[in-house]
Amino acid sequence: MAGEASTARRERGGRARRHRAADRAQAVIAGVERKIPTYELLGEEGLARIEAAADTILREVGIEFRGDEVALRLWREAGADVQGELVRFPAGLLRSILKTAPSAFVQHARNLERSLAIGAEHVVFAPAYGSPFVRDLEGGRRYGTLADFENFVKLAYAIPWLHHSGGTVCEPVDVPVSKRHLDMVAAHLRLTDKPFMGSVTAEARAEDSIEMARIAFGREFVDAHCVIMGNINANSPLVYDATMTKSLRAYARANQCAVVVPFILGGAMGPVTSAGAIAQSLAETMVGCALAQLERPGAPVVFGNFLSSTALRSGSPTFGTPEPALGSLVVGQLARRLNLPLRCSGAFTSSKIADGQAMQESTMSMLAAVQCGAHFILHAAGWLEGGLTIGYEKFVMDADFCAALHVWMSGMALDDNALALDAFGEVGPGKHFFGSAHTLANYETAFWESAVADNNSFEQWRDEGMKDAPQRAAARVKRLLAEYERPKLDPAVEEELADFVRRRKAELPDQWH
Amino acid sequence: MAGEASTARRERGGRARRHRAADRAQAVIAGVERKIPTYELLGEEGLARIEAAADTILREVGIEFRGDEVALRLWREAGADVQGELVRFPAGLLRSILKTAPSAFVQHARNLERSLAIGAEHVVFAPAYGSPFVRDLEGGRRYGTLADFENFVKLAYAIPWLHHSGGTVCEPVDVPVSKRHLDMVAAHLRLTDKPFMGSVTAEARAEDSIEMARIAFGREFVDAHCVIMGNINANSPLVYDATMTKSLRAYARANQCAVVVPFILGGAMGPVTSAGAIAQSLAETMVGCALAQLERPGAPVVFGNFLSSTALRSGSPTFGTPEPALGSLVVGQLARRLNLPLRCSGAFTSSKIADGQAMQESTMSMLAAVQCGAHFILHAAGWLEGGLTIGYEKFVMDADFCAALHVWMSGMALDDNALALDAFGEVGPGKHFFGSAHTLANYETAFWESAVADNNSFEQWRDEGMKDAPQRAAARVKRLLAEYERPKLDPAVEEELADFVRRRKAELPDQWH
Repeated sequence: MAGEASTARRERGGRARRHRAADRAQAVIAGVERKIPTYELLGEEGLARIEAAADTILREVGIEFRGDEVALRLWREAGADVQGELVRFPAGLLRSILKTAPSAFVQHARNLERSLAIGAEHVVFAPAYGSPFVRDLEGGRRYGTLADFENFVKLAYAIPWLHHSGGTVCEPVDVPVSKRHLDMVAAHLRLTDKPFMGSVTAEARAEDSIEMARIAFGREFVDAHCVIMGNINANSPLVYDATMTKSLRAYARANQCAVVVPFILGGAMGPVTSAGAIAQSLAETMVGCALAQLERPGAPVVFGNFLSSTALRSGSPTFGTPEPALGSLVVGQLARRLNLPLRCSGAFTSSKIADGQAMQESTMSMLAAVQCGAHFILHAAGWLEGGLTIGYEKFVMDADFCAALHVWMSGMALDDNALALDAFGEVGPGKHFFGSAHTLANYETAFWESAVADNNSFEQWRDEGMKDAPQRAAARVKRLLAEYERPKLDPAVEEELADFVRRRKAELPDQWH
Repeated sequence: MAGEASTARRERGGRARRHRAADRAQAVIAGVERKIPTYELLGEEGLARIEAAADTILREVGIEFRGDEVALRLWREAGADVQGELVRFPAGLLRSILKTAPSAFVQHARNLERSLAIGAEHVVFAPAYGSPFVRDLEGGRRYGTLADFENFVKLAYAIPWLHHSGGTVCEPVDVPVSKRHLDMVAAHLRLTDKPFMGSVTAEARAEDSIEMARIAFGREFVDAHCVIMGNINANSPLVYDATMTKSLRAYARANQCAVVVPFILGGAMGPVTSAGAIAQSLAETMVGCALAQLERPGAPVVFGNFLSSTALRSGSPTFGTPEPALGSLVVGQLARRLNLPLRCSGAFTSSKIADGQAMQESTMSMLAAVQCGAHFILHAAGWLEGGLTIGYEKFVMDADFCAALHVWMSGMALDDNALALDAFGEVGPGKHFFGSAHTLANYETAFWESAVADNNSFEQWRDEGMKDAPQRAAARVKRLLAEYERPKLDPAVEEELADFVRRRKAELPDQWH
């Protein structure tokens, strides 16, 4: 296409993209399907108590919407009690509004084979989000850069157990705050073909993110299909600020997905008791998801949740502890009763490095996420230090656990081959199964094998340098990055994206905070 | 009592012990009570398929009992089909025999406050068992000694989250094989007052172990109450050897508990498919537990299970992988249908050190154990390298996770204080809960806090020497051992035990294998 006028190219690209849109809407759905039951912690009575508490908070205490007149107008029109910026919700109002929210939807990828169903029996693993710092074994802890950001996008692309490219995988601190979103979204569109998240740090940045998705997917397609997500935090307790509600409404207005997530450290942004923190979280999330429905009924939303505990002596947040693991199970039950897709938990830890503490906490937290029935698991790989750091080695170790969870969620085969009665007849008492026909027939698919764990003998492990898990993971990081190959992208789309980024960077001032 | 005749002392000791027996029978039950549901993986149909497969194995393939004429006679008398050493079991025979096995029982401790209920809603954590090697950060990996053994008994005594002293915590390789059991049981009786396990490596050693328990608890008490356990392995697949069945029968004959545990690495001692390995395990365990009932109806038994996977390229066993975690959940369901107490899983790993691999694998494995409804969780602390090594730091890190599991199993409070509605009224939108009346009232009990994890800021962690989890655990090991104080033991009992050990050591030849 070299030499053709940019406008013509853009138009043809537009037609081509519209044509492809029909294919995409019937896309193959990637991700992993849960074939095992969720873990039901509470009975009807307990769940009803928490729901009643949330309803009481909504009706009597209320939620403040700060600085967003449109949001306040929408609530007034919907029948809420609006006093200044404080909104109180009569019983049943939010559940009634939430009826238009889809219980499941597809987030389309620009590679149709990587589109993801969010909801029902589908589970999506996405990288950690939002760390200003990165860490690797060689360089230690340092501020993240755009190069780091791109590395993590490449790693998530290369690892099949991560289905989603995430959003702010790390903060590219070498790019002005006002322009980062452009480089991040461009990386998610250029370096991977998995689904991704856009910016939420200002309404205009949300709109830029969506506009870039329109360039890649086609304007009409985007209006009819979800292709990008925004992760919206409540300012817990019981506040939404204008940055968040305006970004939330921007995503909803464009028919894109808002993931609504209160961030509650018990004892700080919520009560120290789990049941109360969950009731608060339920109240805040229902309000955010309902606001998206008021902006555009039917817009996809994800019921999000982020509970953690605090070390009360120091006030430090703690992660991967038993209380939020139980909390996840309960939140899963509550989300199912609302019939909304759930985002929950991740590979959380407060450890600074990928040591035993990190993996113990992350494993407990991730198992709670998949057991509770979460559909979209952000922070599934890389999280360290309460989210302040994303670790390269941790990323690969966590992703390896995501691989294990694929097997775990596939459940147990119970057919005649699995029951292996013929094998017992063949082998008999006291003999070994190594060479049996049944073993040979099932050899290659029988057991999951880790890409990071060392299962060799002590002697072999010693002779190979006594490497610990992060050392082995570091080698895997290097190999994955060395072998990375960019997925194909229509050159016309790529140029149009680059044009957009250049234009917006020229328009926007450099801001560093 | 110094200067009194040994015989008189023994008699008075005997009377005193008989007197205490009445108290002990109503002992306070330590351990932890599960207040949350088990995780039900399969439905009725799937469980019935596995049970039917086990019944087919028992009826058509059978189980060999090698070298134990008494066992063969017991089976013949019970109605089994005995051909040489091969025993086949008509449908329903074993389930009928197992009706005399208690669904729960108390293993008494010599400190009545530490007696443990095994079964029902009770969960018991016990140390790793059977490692020839020990490891610590300073000394690396080396053969275990009696000093190591005693250290681990002291650690298990000092840590409240371990309820049980275990058995062969490590092999005391500096003591002849023929005499180790005497020193091990003596350590469990002298250095701790928690319940423990005796020897099973020969019938006479099992009987020595039980005899030492009689010295400590009184002969009559032991005949009426469980005070010691023996861990009996099937020689999977489908074989019991005479060492094991004679030891099993020795424990049962004395009304003591046999824990019956097939050891199945899929693809080696059983099929590579989980459902088949579980059917085999069910068959083997039912047979072992039933043999104990034939020896003495009503003798306590524990339905045990040890499933793992193999890395099929190398044949190495793997641990903490998803397949045995799913297997544990199914085994839990099967044990409940038999109404027998369950031993399952542990802090398994194939890692050589207490790194991220170790804790990821151990956490997955331990969560499966508590979620599946296991009552007696051996190997809950210290396991490394597929069980070949017990690690000091790993022991403390695992025990810390046992502490977390205590909180996890306690479930979620849902009373008015937990729901915290008053706190929301007090705090309101946008304020923090740190100083609220509700936070202050619940401050101290709100969240579990790890004894090993570092939740501090990066800067504080860096300034304190950037310690990883094993380094922090090593410091805790040192402190626990330095602060250890022996529990009280009646000097008459202690002397009688020492007499017994001296006499038996004089009688027995030194054997080193």
